[in-house]
Amino acid sequence: MPTLSHNSYGKSDVRLTKVVRKGARHELFEITANIQIDGDFAAAYTAGDNRNCVATDTMKNFVYVKAKEFSFDAVEQFAVILAEQLLKTYPQISRATAELQQTTWRRIAIDGKQHDHAFAGGGDSQKRYARAAATRGGATELTGGIRGLVVLKTTASEWRDFHTDRHRTLKDTSDRIMATSIDADWPFAAPTGHDFDACTDAITGAMLAQFAMKHSLGVQQTIVHMGEGALAACDAITSISFTLPNLHRIPFNLEPFGLKFENDIFVATDEPYGLIKGTITREPAK
Amino acid sequence: MPTLSHNSYGKSDVRLTKVVRKGARHELFEITANIQIDGDFAAAYTAGDNRNCVATDTMKNFVYVKAKEFSFDAVEQFAVILAEQLLKTYPQISRATAELQQTTWRRIAIDGKQHDHAFAGGGDSQKRYARAAATRGGATELTGGIRGLVVLKTTASEWRDFHTDRHRTLKDTSDRIMATSIDADWPFAAPTGHDFDACTDAITGAMLAQFAMKHSLGVQQTIVHMGEGALAACDAITSISFTLPNLHRIPFNLEPFGLKFENDIFVATDEPYGLIKGTITREPAK
Amino acid sequence: MPTLSHNSYGKSDVRLTKVVRKGARHELFEITANIQIDGDFAAAYTAGDNRNCVATDTMKNFVYVKAKEFSFDAVEQFAVILAEQLLKTYPQISRATAELQQTTWRRIAIDGKQHDHAFAGGGDSQKRYARAAATRGGATELTGGIRGLVVLKTTASEWRDFHTDRHRTLKDTSDRIMATSIDADWPFAAPTGHDFDACTDAITGAMLAQFAMKHSLGVQQTIVHMGEGALAACDAITSISFTLPNLHRIPFNLEPFGLKFENDIFVATDEPYGLIKGTITREPAK
Amino acid sequence: MPTLSHNSYGKSDVRLTKVVRKGARHELFEITANIQIDGDFAAAYTAGDNRNCVATDTMKNFVYVKAKEFSFDAVEQFAVILAEQLLKTYPQISRATAELQQTTWRRIAIDGKQHDHAFAGGGDSQKRYARAAATRGGATELTGGIRGLVVLKTTASEWRDFHTDRHRTLKDTSDRIMATSIDADWPFAAPTGHDFDACTDAITGAMLAQFAMKHSLGVQQTIVHMGEGALAACDAITSISFTLPNLHRIPFNLEPFGLKFENDIFVATDEPYGLIKGTITREPAK
Repeated sequence: MPTLSHNSYGKSDVRLTKVVRKGARHELFEITANIQIDGDFAAAYTAGDNRNCVATDTMKNFVYVKAKEFSFDAVEQFAVILAEQLLKTYPQISRATAELQQTTWRRIAIDGKQHDHAFAGGGDSQKRYARAAATRGGATELTGGIRGLVVLKTTASEWRDFHTDRHRTLKDTSDRIMATSIDADWPFAAPTGHDFDACTDAITGAMLAQFAMKHSLGVQQTIVHMGEGALAACDAITSISFTLPNLHRIPFNLEPFGLKFENDIFVATDEPYGLIKGTITREPAK
Repeated sequence: MPTLSHNSYGKSDVRLTKVVRKGARHELFEITANIQIDGDFAAAYTAGDNRNCVATDTMKNFVYVKAKEFSFDAVEQFAVILAEQLLKTYPQISRATAELQQTTWRRIAIDGKQHDHAFAGGGDSQKRYARAAATRGGATELTGGIRGLVVLKTTASEWRDFHTDRHRTLKDTSDRIMATSIDADWPFAAPTGHDFDACTDAITGAMLAQFAMKHSLGVQQTIVHMGEGALAACDAITSISFTLPNLHRIPFNLEPFGLKFENDIFVATDEPYGLIKGTITREPAK
Repeated sequence: MPTLSHNSYGKSDVRLTKVVRKGARHELFEITANIQIDGDFAAAYTAGDNRNCVATDTMKNFVYVKAKEFSFDAVEQFAVILAEQLLKTYPQISRATAELQQTTWRRIAIDGKQHDHAFAGGGDSQKRYARAAATRGGATELTGGIRGLVVLKTTASEWRDFHTDRHRTLKDTSDRIMATSIDADWPFAAPTGHDFDACTDAITGAMLAQFAMKHSLGVQQTIVHMGEGALAACDAITSISFTLPNLHRIPFNLEPFGLKFENDIFVATDEPYGLIKGTITREPAK
Repeated sequence: MPTLSHNSYGKSDVRLTKVVRKGARHELFEITANIQIDGDFAAAYTAGDNRNCVATDTMKNFVYVKAKEFSFDAVEQFAVILAEQLLKTYPQISRATAELQQTTWRRIAIDGKQHDHAFAGGGDSQKRYARAAATRGGATELTGGIRGLVVLKTTASEWRDFHTDRHRTLKDTSDRIMATSIDADWPFAAPTGHDFDACTDAITGAMLAQFAMKHSLGVQQTIVHMGEGALAACDAITSISFTLPNLHRIPFNLEPFGLKFENDIFVATDEPYGLIKGTITREPAK
């Protein structure tokens, strides 16, 4: 007799815009939320008994209503609000996770002065990330992060002396382009009490500086460089995890055309791509 | 002193086409592979010592070389080959995972006869999925599955009597369109010894039949219907997990235009969407 | 003094689902509409005078309302209805274009019998296309078509004896994989009076047969093969235009691995891609 | 007897990275090129006679070779080089079009100082655009532009007093969010002799300033504002054409939840969207 061994459900891609007016100056939050809940919902699966089920449409409303009812200065705070309020509002929920991405906007500058209510950016590139998970009887877990911070350096990067066997064809190089799109997650020691904007700026700045300044022997090593920089830049986080695609730039073979190789003309490719992961932790496991 | 607490890496989106010629009749495999490995690679991260590192470019070659060296009839077999051969070839690897998606092609029919070497399909819709994970000292774990099997029924689906509170605005309905894109994973009891094409056909056929024939009180209930059907259709699998987005079709409000509501005109939306998950297991945990 | 030399506007990605119930048997139309209009709208641009402007939100409503008010059997008919009704309803419009794509669904088969109200497919692959343009004082122009019909043949395709110069590196091949995603447009001689489903089936069938059966010396030649087949298959169309990306399958170089080349292992690539266009007309220009 | 009434072909998505080293300081160009040619190619279509055909693979090589052989400071220059060199190199070509998009990178700043060889950005957002078309016996036509410059203002935008009829449901608003993704094309009076970076900065700056500073009665009016600003900012261009999707932000209905409407909580939607086009020309047609 088959049984339902796991279930959860939620609402994804809830796209919220919130404008906070501080006099003439407007703050803009654009956030996409994914909500997922665990709890006492098995009857909906096994018997079509939906009485406990919070409809995903209701969850969508919940996101907008809480955005209206609560003030927040950072996407991390709103993630905590959503997760904890879900748990508080619905006794049938045992675990609520709110995963948010915030679009990056910058104020339009006119003659060097930032505009009060006009913004540019807002595209598909770099986003801020926050995930909060609330459970009954435990502290809410909060993770901050970044998605899609694309970086490239044209030199000071090598890839050589790696494992050689029958399947290897790639040659050693002591000067290559290294490019990646940084996805990083950093758990906070506590879900409140931080200046999240300052943390994000410090961590991102440290990652960029390490990426730019440190000579790299591989994406793997750069992960440790960036991770150490991030942990040093912000005391509030306990570790940092990276998922880095290698955005390959392959030297174009100029030889057939009688042209000299000077490491300056490259083919950019998306497929296939190396995918390198690593977690740097502040304290070693004891 | 920060430490590296986790690491793994691999190659993603390795796109392989293999043609197997059986006389005039050609078999076509189009597979996108993601390879990920764990093992003795910390030195690359912490010291830039890459001597143990199998370059992701080497892994890419590995996929094509093994596709040439080995015969296989199904994507599940090739996943097992890749994972096990990686482990066998490279002692520094402790765990190798091969995650494959196979594009669906059908033979072009001319006057009712299937063509020997011409195919149609091959787009972004329904794909076959296989994932094999090989570790030292244990049996290889194999999971089959499907990605993006889009289905819709225009009636015999309800969504009513769900939880009501202040945040609910959605009304009960006893006749709605239900649509989803089925992602399903089914672990096999053993990594070999199955007719994988027959399994996939039986499971997919059972899911489609359950979706079409069973009256639905919610996506949650349909998951159990499809899961029970799948487990009954194929003895080789031990459970089945679903991740189903609700592809909403919302009745268009005709009232402002003086037109009668007859449940026939709908707005299709992608955002936001319900996301429903569930796992059905053959034997209850003891 | 700058002037407004051209203007037009409209609504894109209006996603309509219509269910037509013929007893227990349901017909399903899923159509994405792009509407664009020209007319007396300059004042909105130059003076912010919107009195003539039909809001794009109104256009969206228009699509759903006409879907309710009118019966149609094919997406081509609905394109004509939309374009002509826009012109009839709004005197300030001089030209209305309705460009529609219809998602492909097939009935789920249970024991060989097509189900009355359950469908599969509906993904991102092959879509049916129609575009109608209505103007005052002229006949409505109607174009049918197809988008994203992906095809591949594993042999009977060559690419050789092409232009050689200093920039060429590609070698001749007399046996390659040819694959493409067919976008084709076929203008109808008249906007009404055709069995559009039969036309589309005949044209698509002819294209597939030509693709499969005719030996190809290049995508260019295959365009003519398919175009001639299409024109012969359906008298109602006056020409057919193709836009074909070359979905390259490049032989993987097995030589470094000591393996024999047998033209069976390929790398599938999306970038860069050849893009081949051609129009075949029934009657030569006089 | 069907005839080939039109043909052209080319290579799309040729992705070039070029690094120009000026001592320690590196300049980075990342460009995606689409090449399309017309000429004496009918025999390839009608007879499979490819002798005149420049393979699209050869065109791909051509892009990389010319990137190596020629110096350029701006993507507009490289578009002109490619189009004119194609015409010069291949007598069978009658018209060559090079359409380029350049990814936006900014130097990483460390302690306020721009780094010599490390960059961030490079994502899917704002790109610079250039298109050059060269024909025998005429001047090369050059168009500059921008793609995907996303902007949003939280106030100083209205949408009211537009056409009312039976199909209208949208209410007037005198304070809404206006957001769009600017695609703009600006033809240059001559293909050479301009400081293209300065032109682009001036035009883009003027568009942003107009967007931010001018009160808007509709996207249509904002097109004229931005167009007039652009033409005033750069003498080298003769007109400017806009294609602006309306990135709708729809007030969330808070009434069912007993919350006060304060125009601060919005739903962001992608589908459907208004699409507004307009061209502003420096001199009126005579």
